[in-house]
Order: sequence, then structure tokens, then C-alpha cells
Amino acid sequence: MPKITFDTDSYYLDGKPFFFYSGEIPYFRVPRKDWRFRLQKLKDAGANCVSTYIPWGFHEPEEGSVSFEPDSQKDLDGFLALCAEVGLFVVCRPGPHCYSELRFEGLPDWLCENYPQIRATDFDGKSFRSSSVSYLHPIFLEKAKKWFDAVMPVIQKHTLSNGGTVAFIQLDNEIGGTHEWIWGGYDYNPETIGLFEENGRYPHFLKSRYHSIEALNDHYGTDFPDFAHVEYGKTNNPSTLYEARRYEDYLHFTFEMEAEYLETLANWCGAYINDCILIHNSGTGIMNPHFQEAARRLGKKFLLGSDHYYNLGSHWPQNNPTPQFVSQCFLSMEMLRMMGFPPSIFEFPAGSIGSWPPITRQDLQCDAMAHLAFGMKGLNYYIFSGGPNPEKMGSTVIDYDYSAPIGSKNQIRPHYKALEEVGRYLEENRDLALSKRATDLKIAIDLEHVRSDYYKQDIGFGLGHKELYQFLHLGLLCTAFCGSYSPEILDIHTPSAFMNLSTPLIVPSSAVMAKSVQQNLVNFLKKGGKLLILPMLPEMDEFLSPCTILRDYLGGGKTRPFSYDMPLFELEQFGPAIKSQGKLYETAVLPDGAKRLGFDPITSKLAAWEEETENGGKAIWLGFHWNYCDEGQTRMLEFVLSRLGYDGHKAVECDNPNLWAILRTTKSRAVLYVMNLFTQEMSGTVSLNLSTGREAKEITVPAMDVLTLEFPL
Amino acid sequence: MPKITFDTDSYYLDGKPFFFYSGEIPYFRVPRKDWRFRLQKLKDAGANCVSTYIPWGFHEPEEGSVSFEPDSQKDLDGFLALCAEVGLFVVCRPGPHCYSELRFEGLPDWLCENYPQIRATDFDGKSFRSSSVSYLHPIFLEKAKKWFDAVMPVIQKHTLSNGGTVAFIQLDNEIGGTHEWIWGGYDYNPETIGLFEENGRYPHFLKSRYHSIEALNDHYGTDFPDFAHVEYGKTNNPSTLYEARRYEDYLHFTFEMEAEYLETLANWCGAYINDCILIHNSGTGIMNPHFQEAARRLGKKFLLGSDHYYNLGSHWPQNNPTPQFVSQCFLSMEMLRMMGFPPSIFEFPAGSIGSWPPITRQDLQCDAMAHLAFGMKGLNYYIFSGGPNPEKMGSTVIDYDYSAPIGSKNQIRPHYKALEEVGRYLEENRDLALSKRATDLKIAIDLEHVRSDYYKQDIGFGLGHKELYQFLHLGLLCTAFCGSYSPEILDIHTPSAFMNLSTPLIVPSSAVMAKSVQQNLVNFLKKGGKLLILPMLPEMDEFLSPCTILRDYLGGGKTRPFSYDMPLFELEQFGPAIKSQGKLYETAVLPDGAKRLGFDPITSKLAAWEEETENGGKAIWLGFHWNYCDEGQTRMLEFVLSRLGYDGHKAVECDNPNLWAILRTTKSRAVLYVMNLFTQEMSGTVSLNLSTGREAKEITVPAMDVLTLEFPL
Repeated sequence: MPKITFDTDSYYLDGKPFFFYSGEIPYFRVPRKDWRFRLQKLKDAGANCVSTYIPWGFHEPEEGSVSFEPDSQKDLDGFLALCAEVGLFVVCRPGPHCYSELRFEGLPDWLCENYPQIRATDFDGKSFRSSSVSYLHPIFLEKAKKWFDAVMPVIQKHTLSNGGTVAFIQLDNEIGGTHEWIWGGYDYNPETIGLFEENGRYPHFLKSRYHSIEALNDHYGTDFPDFAHVEYGKTNNPSTLYEARRYEDYLHFTFEMEAEYLETLANWCGAYINDCILIHNSGTGIMNPHFQEAARRLGKKFLLGSDHYYNLGSHWPQNNPTPQFVSQCFLSMEMLRMMGFPPSIFEFPAGSIGSWPPITRQDLQCDAMAHLAFGMKGLNYYIFSGGPNPEKMGSTVIDYDYSAPIGSKNQIRPHYKALEEVGRYLEENRDLALSKRATDLKIAIDLEHVRSDYYKQDIGFGLGHKELYQFLHLGLLCTAFCGSYSPEILDIHTPSAFMNLSTPLIVPSSAVMAKSVQQNLVNFLKKGGKLLILPMLPEMDEFLSPCTILRDYLGGGKTRPFSYDMPLFELEQFGPAIKSQGKLYETAVLPDGAKRLGFDPITSKLAAWEEETENGGKAIWLGFHWNYCDEGQTRMLEFVLSRLGYDGHKAVECDNPNLWAILRTTKSRAVLYVMNLFTQEMSGTVSLNLSTGREAKEITVPAMDVLTLEFPL
Repeated sequence: MPKITFDTDSYYLDGKPFFFYSGEIPYFRVPRKDWRFRLQKLKDAGANCVSTYIPWGFHEPEEGSVSFEPDSQKDLDGFLALCAEVGLFVVCRPGPHCYSELRFEGLPDWLCENYPQIRATDFDGKSFRSSSVSYLHPIFLEKAKKWFDAVMPVIQKHTLSNGGTVAFIQLDNEIGGTHEWIWGGYDYNPETIGLFEENGRYPHFLKSRYHSIEALNDHYGTDFPDFAHVEYGKTNNPSTLYEARRYEDYLHFTFEMEAEYLETLANWCGAYINDCILIHNSGTGIMNPHFQEAARRLGKKFLLGSDHYYNLGSHWPQNNPTPQFVSQCFLSMEMLRMMGFPPSIFEFPAGSIGSWPPITRQDLQCDAMAHLAFGMKGLNYYIFSGGPNPEKMGSTVIDYDYSAPIGSKNQIRPHYKALEEVGRYLEENRDLALSKRATDLKIAIDLEHVRSDYYKQDIGFGLGHKELYQFLHLGLLCTAFCGSYSPEILDIHTPSAFMNLSTPLIVPSSAVMAKSVQQNLVNFLKKGGKLLILPMLPEMDEFLSPCTILRDYLGGGKTRPFSYDMPLFELEQFGPAIKSQGKLYETAVLPDGAKRLGFDPITSKLAAWEEETENGGKAIWLGFHWNYCDEGQTRMLEFVLSRLGYDGHKAVECDNPNLWAILRTTKSRAVLYVMNLFTQEMSGTVSLNLSTGREAKEITVPAMDVLTLEFPL
């Protein structure tokens, strides 16, 4: 009996590392007679797994009448048996939600229509959509449990320990999506959150967070008599600090509810199945950290992946994977790794809702190879092959062909070749499953920043977290990749972020930083660590309470954005001012013993300083928030890091910023990936240090392509 | 003495058609010693014109001290003489505003700093930025007039009638940009608008619009005692009909103010110069119709062009010209033509503020050729070549190199080749200046819709005008181009829109349509015209007063969007439901004698009907608002038009929706442009009817390229 395990490095089959390579085949759409053909084509492309939604609404069209009728389109049992026969592992995705452009997201009509009380509501208690459900509503849970009790036994027959190939079960789908994407907020269903109930979820959450109502009132600027009387802040765009605190609490409460929901589903599943990995697909990379609470609750059997789409229609921002998109994908995968998972894209685009703009072979292959360069260890193509929607169950189309590699009439489309190419690459390079990316810079990020967009608009803090995230991927990361750096991303909440005292630690910061993190940074500096913090110095802790531990240690003052746009930024002893495309932060206070490092050349206002601390420690505050636009920014980063004693060693050097070069190594060899994500051929020279000496190569990469070069080690 | 004229078809030099082919060389940045070299390189690339800003702040650094010092960087006179020597026409752009990433947009520091009262303000009377000026503020006008009085004599020496080559003068720059883009609204400076003053501009405007205060109060739901007491609606996002009406008035008032400003500048200029064409560059295509009032006031000496950027930084939505972008460019050029101008792009990207993401040769050339296919008659590259900013005048950078074709150290960059290629093409195809695009469909649009985004959020009208614009370029136009149609765009406010009774007229409509237009459509139908109106039937006139002339004639009822998202749409006798990626509109009323044509297959609600009117007239209402995503949508459009008697004749047929084929003809020949705006080579078959019979060709177009094919006529 085969056994699948995973860690942050890889998936393992009976202890042997492998790439998870999967494609979605919705059995309920593909005509039964074509099941085998489609599965075989998937396997032929090099896949080792198949994935499918199992829509509740399809199997239980009338309440209480669940059917998996043999020899019909509903014959899940037959499909799973066939998967085993063809030799593919299976990801079962029984919902409750599927999305998948199914009517009511795959929920039964009767559920959405007859039980309006289960709908998620906005903060005025108004439901905004019939299929956006309040996950923990008791009636929804009661009905959903019956569905799990019906579908799990069918799946259970086919799990690995029962001789089948079902190895993964996905719990629900892109949780939070139908709330956040539809009305831009969370679920406030009063019955679910137990508003104004002594033992309600929300009062309970607040009580465990604040202990006394006085503490809460003090924090909120309110005078509620007790926890059961607390109203949530009725805003998605807080405009005061008090509002922001209430909003932030609701955000964390939401993540706890989502975790409780996932745990509930996991328990229902666990009543039948204990030999499967329980997975979930975060809707986008930026949502990955929403599932930290879930990861804690579900423990080792849980595996989070992310969905990475670059084009689902002409209204999307681009038609193909751009460097800006891929930089976000990198960050998404690093966050998954930081959370303990092998970076996996559980929905990797192989088609699109419409047929235009097209998903081309070139784009698809380039996207996959770029993901591999950055450390992807698994992917599931969405979708590999589809077909007609069950009657009245489609929400966008009758024939859910999805411009997939295999069309709904068994046509083999040109981009099937891309799947084959990637499959062949993975097969021929199985050892790369355990490869590591060679890194040079160290950037420590706070997942709390990524997931808390609670001040979308700046409410006087100086920097919204959406802006900070933009700085991270368009500023720091694009600067790094264009400068052929390959940064290691560290979790600032873990001790390992502070282990290395010789390499500077780059810390993007807003006005908010957890108290413990501030203290750890102080300790790091005291021990001789080197810190580059930008663009702000924190002044509040994780509860948005005043906290200036770090600033006090450094002796720095308040940092605030310049009041005029497009300032210049000049650094002492550096050269000409730096192109900005961003904003500058100023401070009135040069810490005692610190040296002025950067300023606005027009007003001479202080925008950066450097300061030596104890035991050889050193800190630089750089009040600069940029989008990458020029090599001068790379040189600036290099210069600033060199002042922190950085040796400037890069894993790879490439002289063309439009070519991003990433080196991956195993014990025996190194593979260099050079990606060109533009529409024109690009040339450059790449060089790297090998045991055999420095090697330099002139390369030309065609438009939208990833070149791979091999080096023995 | 050469004479330059223009009409909607072309520019003419002494009556002979020519393409206006220009590049920006800011003389104040390019070192004096390099002026000749840069100008010559521009001419060598095939250009016939050079353009330059003349920054007020550069020439008048202290109030009253205007200098054009000979033999210095300020020697405008010398530069203009050199332009004539090299043999290039000149566009002078003396402001007052330049933008151009100059500090204070090129205005003098002393003006922006010492006269805060001239700043534009938000609707709370607060200024939002020191260089966003209230155009008609008396102090600003007083200072600006002195600048014009100083600079115009220098320019005047070099105009055509004085033996020089200055042929164009640009008045200000992207008017409205520093208001709308900075804070998202217009200028409400109380002194400029004369708030609460009996003869103030705003009271005066309202008086001329409403005549009596009772009429205004009735329309606004207010009770102001007289016009001098009327407050403007303090909102950019009206939420009630009354608010929308006040907002709409302020919008029109703004356009009048901008026109008055342009007319003022034109008069100042006219005191010195009468032999130049006065131009203005609209900031983006969607702003073109903002200048309708200006065009009326300035008359035949005025020429509006537009600025078309696809990438000014990594935070832009795409890095290269996409089909979605080019569809908007097409619409922009059609609007310019409708307004009486030869479609001209006065800032056509040849570089970018930063060097990344790059402007590549491939992208640039493809963008230019696509524009030519769609009817561009003139372009000015922004910028052709730059250099260091005058001291303390740069806002983004010291060296304004702009990644231009010729670098600030005289380097010749690879994309210079693209300029040469386009230059050669224009030179070898001078006859195409008079070429016409072969058209088939007819779409009548309302420029008022394009420029009135007053209900950004739908306030119960059923459709915001931003959404309608999106439907126009992502829905109708992308459907047309992907289906190898080449629509003629007509101005619905002109009688010519209603001349052709045999070809169906496609009219995209919101809930708002001018009374006269509604009446004209009724008359059109009465005479036997064929009308396709979508997605709404109008129910208000241009003042947002109830007006259902068209609906009453047809006997139709209210049209409103479906309450659930992603509905399906099915048409009688058509085939399977159509992929939507949009929304459906429903009505409760099937007009007497009309036939049900379209419906939502799940609820069966009526979403389209067809009705025969008088004298063979026929109308179809199609309650469908889509983004193009599938060929089914093209077939639907074809089907609907065929029911209106459309013969289905296309100028060109192309079987690959990813290749957009456009035919241009002169008296003697036809040129077919086939554009591929994706990152992968595309193939297809194009065919067209020529006098010699039907000709079909297999073609392959490389990624991001425009293929041209010649046919004799």
C-alpha cells in the first residue's frame, strides 16, 4: 500500500521525493464513455494524479435524495475505480462549495432557496447573495454533515489503505472568496456569530482576547456593559484608530471561524477516512495566511495550496504571466513554505472560463517553468478536460469546455503539448523535487501584514498594508530579481529569522509591528545583527496599541510620508538621486550617534539614517517606498546593504534586468532557470561561481520562455 | 511659405496629404551641443516634426525675470532656428502646465508657493496639491498671461509665415489631469467658480441652464432662494437621482471652464501668432469628449489629439499593447475623428518614466502599426530623446533619459529601429494618409456617455457609464474585432447616424439618452430603419429627467439587471446558451406585437425581444452586457443582426479570433493589416472580396506583430 507524505521540501511516495502533477477532470461533466480516454491522456502527459469536484447539488438535487447511481454520470464509485485502474492518484473535492462556475457554487438549489437564514450577511445583517453561505450556521452544518455522511463512504472505498488511489480530500473551496469577492467584506450572520448572546462565538472570542470588558472598552473607546453587548465595527474602511481596532478584531475572528469550519469538515471526514491528506486551496496567494489558524487546528494532516490565475477573462489586468504576476506567485509559494507546506498550486490555469483572451501553449509552459524555478513542488491544472454542465447547473455556459487542453469533444488542443513538455521535464528531473533555490538576500516578512488589509485607506498610520504588500512584490522583490538577487523569505515571527548575524536582515515595515517582533529585533541588534528596515519605523503593536520598543532602542522618531508626490531621493556618497515612482518618508529625529544617510535634495529633509548599535550591530532606516523602475534602485539597495557589511555575493549574476535568473541545486548538480516574461527576445550574460571556477555564458531567451542550463556540482 | 491644414481624413502640406510624424526633444534637457545630433537622428528616422515643452518655471525662475538667454540651455530662439535648419516642423508646448515629470508640472516654484489661493480645491474648499491649479483663477491668469506675453514673441519669430517651421502650438497639457487623477474630482476653487456671487461663473452657468431658480429647485429637490445661493453637490459618487443631477451639472460646468481656459490661452497666443494650428492633448482616449465645448469655442484653428500610454511603470495593468488596450485606442481615434480631427496621438510611448518594465522595439512597432491600421494620421513620440533635468526641476529623476530611443548620452537604443521602420513605412506609403478603413457594422455612440462617469456606482439606474464604456470596448468592439468585423463608429448626435436605413444601427444604451436622440431613433424606425439597442432601454433624458419617448413608441417596459450573477442567456432559434461573463437585463413587458427573442433559461425571464415597426422598420432590444470571451458571442451578434436583415457581409474574414484583420483602401489599392497582440505566433486564414474575385490566404503572424498584405484594386 503506497503512502504519500510531504514536508516543506517535497511530496514523498513511500519516502521517495516526487512532484505532485495533477489535472482536474470533473467526472460529472465529462461523458461517462470518455472518462477512460481523458484519464489516459492526463496520464500520458506525465501526470500522477487527477482531481475532481464532487458537487453536492448534483448528487442531492432534492433534499434527502442523495444518489451515486451506478452506470450514470453520477457514478462516483465507478469513476474512482477507473482512476485506480488507469493509475492516477485522486484529489476528491466534495465541497460543500465547489464554485467551478456551477450554479450556487455547487450547493443544492433547495438549500440556497429554502433556507435563506444560512446566507452570509453584510454588517447590516443583509444577505448579499443566495450562495454565499455563513459557514458555521447550524442549519448549513446540519445539512452539510448529511452530505459528508453520504459521500464519504463512497470515497472511503477508494482510499489508499483500501486498495484505491484517493490520496487527497479537499475541504470546501477557496474559503472566504464568496464573501470577500462579492461584497468586499466578511460574514456577519448574527446567528452564526452569536451576536448579543452570552455564549455566542463573537462574545466568546472577544472575552478570550480581552478578558475584561473594561480592557475592551478602553481599547475601543466604547462603554459596552459586557461582552454580550459588544457590536462589531460596522465598516470595511475604518477611518479612526478605534474603528481599525474593532475591524482588526473582526478580521481575526473571521479567520478563527474559517478554521473552525475547516476543522468541523475535517472531523466529519475523519469519521470515515484517516489515510488521506486534507487539502485546501487558498483563492489567491495573498489569502494564504488567512489559513494560519486552520493550519494550527488541523495539524499535520492538513496541506494548504494556492490558486494562481493570470487571465480569466478580458477584464483581467493582463493576458499572460508578467514579471509582476510571477513575483506575486513567488511570494505566495514562499508563504506556503513558511507555513509548513510544499509549495503547491492546486489550481494552475490550463484553460479559462472563456476562450478569449486565449491561454496559449507558450504562456502556459512559461508560467509552469517559472513556478518550478521559484520552488513549486506540485500543481493541479484547472481544468484538464471538461464537458457539458449537468442540466441547469451551469452558471456561465452550457458546455463547460473551458478551452482546456483536451476539449469537450475529445479534441487535443495545442497547449496539451505544454503539459507534456512540463510532464517530461518533471519525469526527467525527479531529483529536482528536493532541489533548493540558491539565495543571497534575506527578507523577513510578517504574514500578519499580508493578511490584514484593515486599513485599505491610510487612516493616518502613514502606510496601508495593501501598499506595503505592493512594495514587497513590486518594490523589493522586483528590484531583487531584476538585480539577479534571489532572496530568502523568512517569517519574522520565528526565531530562525534572527539566527544569522552576519547577513543583513531586510524588514519591510508599516507603522504596525508585534511587540515580540520589535523586542526580537532589538535583541538581534544587541547581539550584533544588521538590520535594514523600510519604509517606516513601527509605532504600534499587533493590537494597534502604542508600542515603540524598536524605535526607542534606536532613538529614532516618528516616520511619516512626505506631503508632496514624486520626490527625489538622494543618498550620501551614493551618486545621483534615485528614480522614485513611489514615496518618501521623513523623520524629524536623527538618533544620537546616527548618521544622516538619505534625504530629499529639494527640501533636505531627513529620509534615511544609519546607526551602529552594540557588539557590531548596525541598523539602517530607509524611508523609501518604491515600485521597481530602474537599475539605480538595485544599485541603491546594493549600496545600503554594503553599508551593513553585506559581501555582495550573488548566487547568479545577470546583466539584463529583463531576464530573471534563478539557480536551483541538488547535491550533484545545479540548474539555472532564466526567464523572459516579455514579448521580445532578450539577451544577456549570466555568470555563476561553481566549484570549477567562475562560469559566464551569453544567452538569448525567446519571448515568453524559460531557458534552463545545467551545471555539475 | 508652406501651409499645413487638416481635416478628419488627414494632414495636408500645401494641400498634399501627409502623415504627421513627430518626436519630443525637450531642448531644456538635451545639452545644447547635442541639439543638432538629436534633431538629425529624429529626421533620419523619417520624422517631419519635432515637439518640445517650454517650461515656464525654467524660463522664469524668479517672478518677473523671464530669460531666453542666447547660447545657453534657455536659448529657445536658437533651438527653433536649428529645427528649421534641420528641416523639421515644430510643436511648441509652452504650457502653462507641462507635466513632463517636472517639479510643479513645469510651473514656477514662486507661483505655486507664494500664491496658494490659485490652487484647485476639492468640494470642501481644501487644496489637495500645490501644483494642481485652478485654471481660471484671476491671479493664475494674470501671471500666465505675462508668461505668454514673454514666450510668444520668441516663438512668433519662427512660425511658418516668418520663414520658420513652428506650425503647431499646444495650449496647456492634458487639461483636467492634475485634478481628476490626483483626487478623483474636479476643481471647486470658490473664487474661480464665483460661488455665492451673483455674477459668479457657477451661478451664471446654472442660470443659463435653468433660467428660473424654481426650475432648478424642482430638478434638485432643493429650495435655494436664487442662483447665487446654490451649493454644488458635494459628492463624486452621488447616491440619489437628485445628487446625480447636481453632479452632472458640475461636470458640464467643468467642461465649460476648461473650454474658457483654452479659449483664453488661444486669445493670448492669437495676439502674436495667427498662422499656427492650436493643439491640445487629451490625457487619455476616454477624456477626448471632455473637449467638445473647447472645440466649439476655438473653431477651425483647434486640433485635439490624445495621449496613449500602455506602460508607465510596473504598477500599470500590462507591459505591452494588448487587444484590450488597442480596442480603447481605436475608440479614442474614432472619437477624435467624430469631433472633426485627423486621429493623432500627441504622446505616443517611445520610452517610459523608468527603464522597467521595458518599452521594447517589438511592442513599440506593433503598437504603431496597430494604430495605423485603425486610422491614426499623426503621432508624436514621447519622448524621442532627453537629458538631465534643469537643476531642482525634476520630480522623478536627475537624468530624464526616459529609456528613449536616443539616450541622454547620445546612445542609439534598439527601439530606434522601430521608429525607422515606421518612418520608412509612412514614407513609402504616403498615399495611405488618405486611406479609409473598410467597415461593415454600424455602431452609434454617445460621447456624453463616455465623458459622464457621474454615476460610477450604479444608483438604481441599472448601469453606470463606466460599465457602459467597458461594454463598448471589451464587449461590442472586442466581439467585432475577434469576429473580423470592422465597425464604423457614428456620433448619435448627428443626422448621419440615421441616414442608412438598410444596415442595422447598433446603439449601446444606458438608462440615459438625450430626448432628441430618442426622438431621432423613433423617426429612424418610422422610416424603416433597423435598430439593435442594448443592454438597456432609456428612461431618462440628458438632464436625468424622466423621458421614455423611445420606449413608449416601442411599447417596452422598464429594463433592469438580473439580481443574480453569472446568468445564462439563451436566444430563440439560436442554439445553446451563450457564455456570459457579464450581466443580463430583464423586462416584465413584451411589447404588443413583439416576439420573445431571448431569456434566462433557468428563470425563463424575458431578456430580449424583437418588434417590427412601420415601413419595414424593426427593433431588437437585447438585454445583455458582456465582456468578450467566446466565439458564441460573435455568432449571437451575427444572428441578431441577421434578424434585422443584415446581409452579413464583412470587409475581411479571418477564422482566428486572436488575429484582428483590418482593411484600408485608397482608390488604387487595399492594404490588409493583421495584428497579433499575444505572446505566441498565431495562424489563420484571411479572405476578402476583391474586384478580381474572392481571395483567401493562409497567414502566420509572429507574436506581437502586425502583418501587412497588399492587394491592387
